[in-house]
Amino acid sequence: MTTMEAMGKKAKEAARALARAGQEKTAALQAAARALLARQEELLAANRADVEAGEAGGMRDSLLDRLRLTESRIAGMAQALREVAEAPDPVGRVLSGEVRPNGLQIQKITVPLGVIGIIYEARPNVTSDAAGLCLKAGNAVILRGGKEAFRSNLAVAQVLRDALEESGLPADCVQLVEDTSRQSAQELMGLTGYLDVLIPRGGAGLIRAVKENSRVPVIETGVGNCHAYVDAAADLDMAADIVYNAKCSRPSVCNAIETLLVHEKIAGEALPRIKSRLDEKQVELRGCQKARAILPGIAAAAEEDWATEYNDYILAVKVVGSLEEALGHIARYSSGHSEVIVTEDYSAAQRFLEEVDSAAVYVNASTRFTDGGEFGLGAEIGISTQKMHARGPMGLEELTSCKYVIYGEGQVR
Amino acid sequence: MTTMEAMGKKAKEAARALARAGQEKTAALQAAARALLARQEELLAANRADVEAGEAGGMRDSLLDRLRLTESRIAGMAQALREVAEAPDPVGRVLSGEVRPNGLQIQKITVPLGVIGIIYEARPNVTSDAAGLCLKAGNAVILRGGKEAFRSNLAVAQVLRDALEESGLPADCVQLVEDTSRQSAQELMGLTGYLDVLIPRGGAGLIRAVKENSRVPVIETGVGNCHAYVDAAADLDMAADIVYNAKCSRPSVCNAIETLLVHEKIAGEALPRIKSRLDEKQVELRGCQKARAILPGIAAAAEEDWATEYNDYILAVKVVGSLEEALGHIARYSSGHSEVIVTEDYSAAQRFLEEVDSAAVYVNASTRFTDGGEFGLGAEIGISTQKMHARGPMGLEELTSCKYVIYGEGQVR
Repeated sequence: MTTMEAMGKKAKEAARALARAGQEKTAALQAAARALLARQEELLAANRADVEAGEAGGMRDSLLDRLRLTESRIAGMAQALREVAEAPDPVGRVLSGEVRPNGLQIQKITVPLGVIGIIYEARPNVTSDAAGLCLKAGNAVILRGGKEAFRSNLAVAQVLRDALEESGLPADCVQLVEDTSRQSAQELMGLTGYLDVLIPRGGAGLIRAVKENSRVPVIETGVGNCHAYVDAAADLDMAADIVYNAKCSRPSVCNAIETLLVHEKIAGEALPRIKSRLDEKQVELRGCQKARAILPGIAAAAEEDWATEYNDYILAVKVVGSLEEALGHIARYSSGHSEVIVTEDYSAAQRFLEEVDSAAVYVNASTRFTDGGEFGLGAEIGISTQKMHARGPMGLEELTSCKYVIYGEGQVR
Repeated sequence: MTTMEAMGKKAKEAARALARAGQEKTAALQAAARALLARQEELLAANRADVEAGEAGGMRDSLLDRLRLTESRIAGMAQALREVAEAPDPVGRVLSGEVRPNGLQIQKITVPLGVIGIIYEARPNVTSDAAGLCLKAGNAVILRGGKEAFRSNLAVAQVLRDALEESGLPADCVQLVEDTSRQSAQELMGLTGYLDVLIPRGGAGLIRAVKENSRVPVIETGVGNCHAYVDAAADLDMAADIVYNAKCSRPSVCNAIETLLVHEKIAGEALPRIKSRLDEKQVELRGCQKARAILPGIAAAAEEDWATEYNDYILAVKVVGSLEEALGHIARYSSGHSEVIVTEDYSAAQRFLEEVDSAAVYVNASTRFTDGGEFGLGAEIGISTQKMHARGPMGLEELTSCKYVIYGEGQVR
């Protein structure tokens, strides 16, 4: 038995105990929130060592920023755990139920998924955020974070494990993989006998690698090549506001837009107006030929621009001849995350909502709202861009499965 | 582009049209039901050629029986299509919805999964049953049946394609893979850009192969290593009835039991009584040491017996010292399909329902009820033994996904 299999076995045993827990889960999450604050110095020291190693290794500033823990970030992690602790228990809910003509009482009830694997990159807050959600939904979790954040992740995981034990639950409900090599990720993807689901959290490269290589079922999250389409019948002020917000309010996140499609009828008026808003943030535009005829001086978009999630102050721009052409472009290039049509035309709006095959489809609102909190679902473990099991923001409900329980009196068939 | 990729592309285009269809789906299914009857001779002739080739190749009788179409089986296929046609449309249902404080109207609605691949073995009725369910849920389907049934499958698929065209839908909503080599199954498992889900239907070997090799998300169905546990507090007459029914009413199906666990306190009385019922069907028992002490003359169970789905008149028998031991045995060997406890003890029943991690868990009723029809869900495409997306009998609802549609008035974040 490999180290990873041994972790899988321990997780499976811990999950059996956790599946029956109710109040203990809440107590453990609250204890963990308190301990994150009480053991802040320990966490900051571990994180300092990670950050120093990152600096010495020439890590980029944006990555260093993600890696860094501060008092306020730790307070945020503790607050997130408290909120999850206080959420209603997603396990044991009766989804449906009836008495069959033969007297069998059949109920469909929610149960934990079992053991969840999470592969993630440099943010140590994912350790407590993801583990907290998994625990609340009754799942044991095996965390495999990036090597850059290893000391921080280990410290956070230890706090969680101590809180579990203190609350009478197995510490092995949360395990951190100590080997951060590529090999350990590979082993996790093959742990079919023990893992029920694997969730990658990180950049497009990580997610693609997990999707292509995992034999454990995967939930894809977070790749967002999102589109805004400004229709012929758009309110152009609204269009400029929405495009500006969807691109600029936080370009690094998955619900920001990457391509702007504009109907040719209004492109001559709309594009300069939108550009002048985007200029406030020096957004770089990369346009098709028609867009460049209207906005001389912007760069030319290459084929790969339509498929790129920039996560930056860059926006691809295409002028389309019809709603049909916009729908075709989106069907071809979208990652299935979030898209918006800006229009006052009822039929265009309805057709866009119906035909765009993405997790979240908007009329006249920024794609930036695709978020568990904004949708009123509470904390999320990620935004699913696949169609099986969960789609869109994944909260506690999406971390459960179901089973049928049947009460009989000796019925045979 | 390979032949399989070309099929995937056509399926994806057909799925876009099908996603918007309402009444046309119903009309196509009804037309297909009529055409199966009207073109019966054509189907029987194609099937005769398959059956003759099977006989010439020395195919086993049980397989020949699965392969054979008769007038009454074709009538059954037509009837199944009519029932699916008349079922409520699973697409476009609002699962939840609310107006957020910022005025955004957010609705979660059901949508088709997209393109579904089905890999199956020798039953030609699967061609129309599976395609009918997929179509009703708005999905295009790529069918890859076994080579033994190829002529039959082709004839059935042609009837469905003609009915689709007649009803104004693309014929490519249903495509049958003409290459029945292992290679074609392998290609289907790698068709990630086009297939949303792959569902294997058949024996344990097929399902394992698909699960291990597919890069397309898979829904596992139908492997049933099911258990009956006769508790210390069981009504022994009821226990004998349930065990007899669960083993003998149709041993070849996945919801039949394969192992009997009996509490040692009542084993001395229960086992002879159960055995005398099973003797009516000459069921072969394979027991642990304690069982053989009570029932001298039965064969000894080897380790692999506990893990085997016999699909035959064979039953493994183990005497356990406690409910705890029974739960441990089930946790170790069950395929997660269906298990039953026979008991009059309230706490034992509740604990069994709670702790057994299977799709369907029974108290005092035969496991043979795990079935879409018996559960009141309508026709099923299979019984999922995995925890993601669907668990237990999978009907129309389980062939859909969801998306969020959001109506705004210019909201930005």
